[in-house]
Amino acid sequence: MITTPALVAPSAGARFESRTVEHRDLRDDDVLIDIKFAGICHSDIHQVREEWGSAIFPMVPGHEIAGIVSAVGDGVTKYKVGDRVGVGCMVDSCGECEFCKDGEEQFCSKGAVMTYNGKGYDGEPTKGGYAQKVVVSERFAVAIPDGIELDVAAPLLCAGITVWSPLKRWGAGPGKKVAVIGFGGLGHMAVKLAAALGAEVSVLSRTDAKKDDGAALGATHYYATGEEGVLASLKGTFDIIINTVSADLPMQTYIGQLRPLGVIANVGLPSGKYDFAPGVVIGRSRVVAGSNIGGIPATAEMLEFCATHGIGATIETISADEVDAAYDRVVAGDVRYRFVIDTSTIAV
Amino acid sequence: MITTPALVAPSAGARFESRTVEHRDLRDDDVLIDIKFAGICHSDIHQVREEWGSAIFPMVPGHEIAGIVSAVGDGVTKYKVGDRVGVGCMVDSCGECEFCKDGEEQFCSKGAVMTYNGKGYDGEPTKGGYAQKVVVSERFAVAIPDGIELDVAAPLLCAGITVWSPLKRWGAGPGKKVAVIGFGGLGHMAVKLAAALGAEVSVLSRTDAKKDDGAALGATHYYATGEEGVLASLKGTFDIIINTVSADLPMQTYIGQLRPLGVIANVGLPSGKYDFAPGVVIGRSRVVAGSNIGGIPATAEMLEFCATHGIGATIETISADEVDAAYDRVVAGDVRYRFVIDTSTIAV
Repeated sequence: MITTPALVAPSAGARFESRTVEHRDLRDDDVLIDIKFAGICHSDIHQVREEWGSAIFPMVPGHEIAGIVSAVGDGVTKYKVGDRVGVGCMVDSCGECEFCKDGEEQFCSKGAVMTYNGKGYDGEPTKGGYAQKVVVSERFAVAIPDGIELDVAAPLLCAGITVWSPLKRWGAGPGKKVAVIGFGGLGHMAVKLAAALGAEVSVLSRTDAKKDDGAALGATHYYATGEEGVLASLKGTFDIIINTVSADLPMQTYIGQLRPLGVIANVGLPSGKYDFAPGVVIGRSRVVAGSNIGGIPATAEMLEFCATHGIGATIETISADEVDAAYDRVVAGDVRYRFVIDTSTIAV
Repeated sequence: MITTPALVAPSAGARFESRTVEHRDLRDDDVLIDIKFAGICHSDIHQVREEWGSAIFPMVPGHEIAGIVSAVGDGVTKYKVGDRVGVGCMVDSCGECEFCKDGEEQFCSKGAVMTYNGKGYDGEPTKGGYAQKVVVSERFAVAIPDGIELDVAAPLLCAGITVWSPLKRWGAGPGKKVAVIGFGGLGHMAVKLAAALGAEVSVLSRTDAKKDDGAALGATHYYATGEEGVLASLKGTFDIIINTVSADLPMQTYIGQLRPLGVIANVGLPSGKYDFAPGVVIGRSRVVAGSNIGGIPATAEMLEFCATHGIGATIETISADEVDAAYDRVVAGDVRYRFVIDTSTIAV
C-alpha cells in the first residue's frame, strides 16, 4: 500500500481532518503523482456537504490536481518520473466503448470512475486531490506543459475543461460574440479562453463589482445584469452564451439574447427547471445545450492551448488549515477566482 | 399588371373562392412562374384561420410551389423560359446582411418577405401558390432537377427543407440513429431524407396505424409511443430526434431518449412551454434545438439530393374545389402525407 497525508471529511459537512490515507500499489498502467496543488471546485462542497445526494465518507475531495510523477508502473509508456501532470474529474473508464474510443470518457458506457466520491472498478472508494499523493492510470494523467505553473494549472483540470468543451464544440473564435454568465471560477476561465480563441467576449455578472477584472481578463464588454433594463437591452446579441451559474435564471430571456443559430451552453446545474416558449428556439434556430466536463484528449488540447497563450487560472493559494473557511467563502462568492490548496501544508 | 386565377380566402376561416388576382409586372430580376402544383402546409391553415394572430385578407395561401418559368425580367441570369422551378416560404430578403450572404435568408436582418400573408418591401401584400401564376425575384426561385416530378416536388419547398436543415446541421448520416416524432407531412419527409442520408431511422408515432408506411419510406424501427412502456424503453437511444409535432409533448422524456451529445431538433411549434430539468441536458451534454425552414442554397442542395435519391413527397393530389375539405382532413391528421393542389383546376 502507498500512504499519503490527506485532508479528510469524516462525515457529511464535518470539518476537515488531516489523516494518513492509503492508495493501491501501482498497477502496470499506474502512475504515482506527488500532488503539489489542488483546486477547490464548488462541486467539492456540494459533495462534502451531501447536497447532491448520498456520498461516500470518509471523503478526500479534489479533482483539480497538479503534480509531478514520482513512480510509474511496469507498463507505463506515456510518462516518466519527473513529468508534470494533472488529474481532473475522472480516473478510469472502460477504454473500449465508442465514447472512450472517441475520447469522450465522461460518457463511458460502463460508467467513468470519478476521482473522488466514486468507486473504482475494483470496488474501492476513490480518493482525490486534497492530499500529497494519488495513484491513477496513466490514461487519466494529462501532461501539463512547461509554460504553465502547477498552481495556476490545477483549476484548469475541471474549471478549464468544463468551459473549454462548449467553447470548442460551438465554435468560439474570431467573428463570434461570446457571453459568459457568471464571473466566478468557471466564468473567469471561460472569459480567458474565449478571448484567447479570438472571440469578442462579454461578461454578464449581477453587479459591476468585478468590472475591472472583466477587461483585465480579456472581456470587451461587461454587463451588470442586476441593473434595470440591462438584460432586455441585450436581445439578439450573442452567438454563444456560456452559462456557468447554478442559480435559477430566466432562461427564456437569456435564450432571447442569442442571434439566429446561436447557442446557450449550460454548465451550471440549478435546482429548478428550464422553462421557455418553444418559439424562442424555433423561430431563430437557436440552441439550448448542456455540457459536462470534457474528455482526456480535449483536456490535453486545452492545456496546450493555455501554455501557448500564457493562460492559467487566477488563484488564491491557501494552506490546509484554511480549507473550511475557504468553503464558506466560495459559497458566498468571495474568491477571485479559485482557491488552490498548497498540499505541502497538509500535516498529519 | 399580371393577372391569374387563384384560390382566395376572403376573410379569416371563410371558404375559398376562385378569383382573379394581380401580380406586379416583372422587374429586372423577376421571373413569372406558371404554377402547376401547390402543397397544403398546416401553417396555411393556421394563417387562413388566423390562429397565429392577425392576418392579411383577402389571402392566397401556398408556399410549396412547383411550376415552369414562363417569362423573365431583363436582368434575369439564373433562369430561362421553360425552366422547372419551385418557390418556398420566402420571396425576398435584403440580400446584403450577413445572414443573406450566408444563405440563411430566413434570418435576414431587414426581415425576409414571406410568400403570402406578408408584405413586400414595396408595401404590397404577397400572394402565394394556390394560383396559376406567381411573380418572384429569381433569387427566390429554386431549380427543380429533372429527376423529380413537379407534383411530388412541391411539398419539398417547405416540408422538405424544414426537416432537411436540422438533419444536415446535426449530422444525420451513416452510423447515426435518427428518430422522427410525428409521421405526417414533415415527418414522412424526415424519414425519407434521413434514410437516404444513411442514418438508421425510427418513427415515433402515437399509434401503429402507419407502421407499414414507416418501413416502406425507409424507417428501420417504428414505435407506437401511445402504448404502455414504449417511451420509457427508448431512454438513451438516439443521436438525433427531429420533432415535427406541434402538440405539447413531455419534453424531458424525449430529451432523455438522446444518447450523450445527442440533439433534439424541434420544428413543430406547440402552444405550451418546454419544461425540463437542467440535468437532463447537462449530464450527457445533450442539446435542445429549434429550426426554422432553411435558406435558398440549402433548399437547392436538398432538391439536388432528392433528385439523386429519387425522393419526392408522398402526396394526394386534389382539385381546387376540394381544398376546404382537405383543410379539415389535415387538421384531423387524415392525409398520407401531403395534399397537393392541381392548380389547373382553379376556374374563375
